[in-house]
Amino acid sequence: MRLATLLVQRRPLVALVSAEGDRFHPLAEALPGLPEAAARDMTAAIAHLAESGARPAPSGPGQPLDPALLTAPLPRPPRNIFCVGKNYHAHAREFASSGYDSSAAGAADAIPAAPIIFSKPWTSISGPAADIPLLPGLDGGVDYEAELAVIIGRGGRAIPKAQAMAHVFGYTVVNDVTARDLQQTHKQWLLGKGIDGFCPMGPWIVTADAVEAGAMRVTCTVNGEPRQDASTADLIFDIPTLIETISRSMALLPGDVIATGTPEGVGIGFRPPRFLREGDVVECAISGIGRIRNTLRRVA
Amino acid sequence: MRLATLLVQRRPLVALVSAEGDRFHPLAEALPGLPEAAARDMTAAIAHLAESGARPAPSGPGQPLDPALLTAPLPRPPRNIFCVGKNYHAHAREFASSGYDSSAAGAADAIPAAPIIFSKPWTSISGPAADIPLLPGLDGGVDYEAELAVIIGRGGRAIPKAQAMAHVFGYTVVNDVTARDLQQTHKQWLLGKGIDGFCPMGPWIVTADAVEAGAMRVTCTVNGEPRQDASTADLIFDIPTLIETISRSMALLPGDVIATGTPEGVGIGFRPPRFLREGDVVECAISGIGRIRNTLRRVA
Repeated sequence: MRLATLLVQRRPLVALVSAEGDRFHPLAEALPGLPEAAARDMTAAIAHLAESGARPAPSGPGQPLDPALLTAPLPRPPRNIFCVGKNYHAHAREFASSGYDSSAAGAADAIPAAPIIFSKPWTSISGPAADIPLLPGLDGGVDYEAELAVIIGRGGRAIPKAQAMAHVFGYTVVNDVTARDLQQTHKQWLLGKGIDGFCPMGPWIVTADAVEAGAMRVTCTVNGEPRQDASTADLIFDIPTLIETISRSMALLPGDVIATGTPEGVGIGFRPPRFLREGDVVECAISGIGRIRNTLRRVA
Repeated sequence: MRLATLLVQRRPLVALVSAEGDRFHPLAEALPGLPEAAARDMTAAIAHLAESGARPAPSGPGQPLDPALLTAPLPRPPRNIFCVGKNYHAHAREFASSGYDSSAAGAADAIPAAPIIFSKPWTSISGPAADIPLLPGLDGGVDYEAELAVIIGRGGRAIPKAQAMAHVFGYTVVNDVTARDLQQTHKQWLLGKGIDGFCPMGPWIVTADAVEAGAMRVTCTVNGEPRQDASTADLIFDIPTLIETISRSMALLPGDVIATGTPEGVGIGFRPPRFLREGDVVECAISGIGRIRNTLRRVA
């Protein structure tokens, strides 16, 4: 099942999207009795579906989907997105040796002993085709990070690894766009990661039953040139470990997002670094989910 | 003006509290035409007051205030709380030399060159008299941090220092409770800082016109023993600088909270560290605002 948020007549609408990605049914039509809030707000829809166990049953061919209507599938999760730093071996090494990593003294402690968890405010979320803003003074070291994002369904506290996957509602694609200079200057990563528009997401959420999260291919291209290409099988800390770790500190909530980290090939992995510039087109794709495509635009 | 959130008949109620802290008026009674949401939700009340410029006019003596009704004044800000690390000189030195500081290699770089900004999920917020939970496995290195919290009124992006104070709605007291072992293990501080119940807040919000934020006295006692005692005049990065810095990355929103950092005297400043234990009573107070008093309780 694929769930998207569409902007229809200026209002958000939660919709079921066809396997081909070209048609949709409003969720409220496919699921009689859906609470009004859940017809318009994906967090409410996830909470309802995860807690009720209800399965939407779309009938008929649905309506043609204009991709321009797609917004981020989950534009307002209940709190900041959880993000994982340095969660692929090859990327952990490239980041630690880049000079931008305030979390490691050098290559020797490149691979983290425990998950590095930080947050991106939900206000940084933007749509699957939204422009990525280059703001004055924040435009010097902008980098891409293609990532698999896990969406929590049923909430819970102190979830053991063995039960963790039962709390996963589904998956989507994010680009954890980062201003490397701010990330380094401020030690903690919130300001360099949380810039408005620095978290393109989409194109939809694919529910957990429809994909095999342990072996997805994550890729990123810049202007068509391959930059990142890895399998989620190479995660240092897998999804059950991340859920166990975070839920030990705080109860997870329906609609929480965990961006699982990015593989090797980011801009600062190059010598010299290859940062994003005005007009660059970044495409992040994950097998079984889809792709997002965002253009760098200078704004005042 | 003092604004509190009370739990009355199991529902939150935004109220004006008297200067003596012993009586209250429901905000809706003191401000005709207040939107329904703003009568029950402090974030909505702040947005309304900041944007409309309306001034409540309570009439009559009001009702007696039972302190047991006080919840956190702002239990659900629009996103995670912004927190500032190492923002008093003496504390920056004690933390850097404690062995728990993943952001500094040692005493030489103890004083940050730029504000260190991280977040605490709003779900960690608890009331001014709430217990602080000692959870299994998270009870080994729990520490207190008394802090002045700034509440944003009118939102804005790229706010210059000179205009920053016009965006401050008011102030409250928070205890930025921290699990030092998790803070260190996970490098980024979210998990060690974001534990459910690790952000007691209150007892109310004092509006910006009623206090002088540049010279407030911040104190903390544990079981009556003085531990922290400093003036906000000693902040390394003052409130206008913090607002300018954060709003450069993202638009600030009505109800956003910025916890400005803690002074010297935390538990890890002692040799050996003096962590909090079952039954300990922590009181954090700020002149012109009030005090919060929280007890450590072991929970299953």
